Amino acid sequence: MSESGRGPARWRVVAREPVAEARVFRVVRLRSIREGGQGRAEADFFAIDSADFVNVVALTEDDRLIFVEQHRHASGELTLEIPGGLVDAGEDPVAAGLRELEEETGYVAKQACVLGTTRPNPAIMTNRLTTVLALGARPVAAQSLDEHEDCEVQLLAWDEVLARIDDGRIDHALILASLLFEMRRRAGISASAS
Amino acid sequence: MSESGRGPARWRVVAREPVAEARVFRVVRLRSIREGGQGRAEADFFAIDSADFVNVVALTEDDRLIFVEQHRHASGELTLEIPGGLVDAGEDPVAAGLRELEEETGYVAKQACVLGTTRPNPAIMTNRLTTVLALGARPVAAQSLDEHEDCEVQLLAWDEVLARIDDGRIDHALILASLLFEMRRRAGISASAS
Repeated sequence: MSESGRGPARWRVVAREPVAEARVFRVVRLRSIREGGQGRAEADFFAIDSADFVNVVALTEDDRLIFVEQHRHASGELTLEIPGGLVDAGEDPVAAGLRELEEETGYVAKQACVLGTTRPNPAIMTNRLTTVLALGARPVAAQSLDEHEDCEVQLLAWDEVLARIDDGRIDHALILASLLFEMRRRAGISASAS
Repeated sequence: MSESGRGPARWRVVAREPVAEARVFRVVRLRSIREGGQGRAEADFFAIDSADFVNVVALTEDDRLIFVEQHRHASGELTLEIPGGLVDAGEDPVAAGLRELEEETGYVAKQACVLGTTRPNPAIMTNRLTTVLALGARPVAAQSLDEHEDCEVQLLAWDEVLARIDDGRIDHALILASLLFEMRRRAGISASAS
């Protein structure tokens, strides 16, 4: 319990002012006010506006997960990730996930649904991350990458995924969050089968 | 495989230029060059520089996890998180985790170690996130919060943590990534006990 016993203080944003544009994101200053039990306060906080993210847990018919290996510019390293990207304005997250899956890997799925919805970083990012489950994925097309994109497709069985989590090869935190949902789904299937 | 068969293209940063300062992070422009098999290219990418993050999986002696509920300014929502924060310059991540644990909750642990190291978002953030495991945590002090910080402490048994992942109450992706490491640790203990 907080010392007040009234729950954590809440703030409301009274003004949003753009600070910097950076192509795929924008920095905004949030003029914010706290009212209520903890006393009135006024302060500025900075946040990053971005389109929503989508990650896709895509399974082939022989139950392998589709991964892509690609260079990431902020870390300067190659990462092993599940497919994903930005949700276009007005686009359904499941449709966005299937679009990114096909663009990055050439795979198309038979069925898809939302596996989980999260906040990538609610302290400094305003957007959401949806994890989509795509089943029965088959390679039907060539990759269709953006100008500076280059992905290498890898198919991994679930025990190989766990091994690469444990040895640190899969180390992108937002990918790990999406894989946690898949881990819970698999635990649910095991529980109902036993 | 990529069509080239040479692995994904890699880039190197040749210049870093600050674009905007936002207190806990800074936007930088990365002038980057790609060389090798995919052909030479030059482009600018934007990234967010921040101090490294630390999250703490802190267990009490009766095996409950310590959570804090707090308002997050970018999402405008209350979130249920494990303790964490920014690693100070030159600070050891385990020491940073124990410091954040004590400041946010008043709990002090008997033992601590690194549970996993990740990238919060290697596409746009340059920093790392370390997850620290802290054992034998006991309440010994009052909270010591920053001016605009207000956290409410909650203790949750592991099955309650899983229930709150499944119902979406715990939805901070970086917290989920840290909890995935704890899930793997518990799976390892179960496997070695059976």
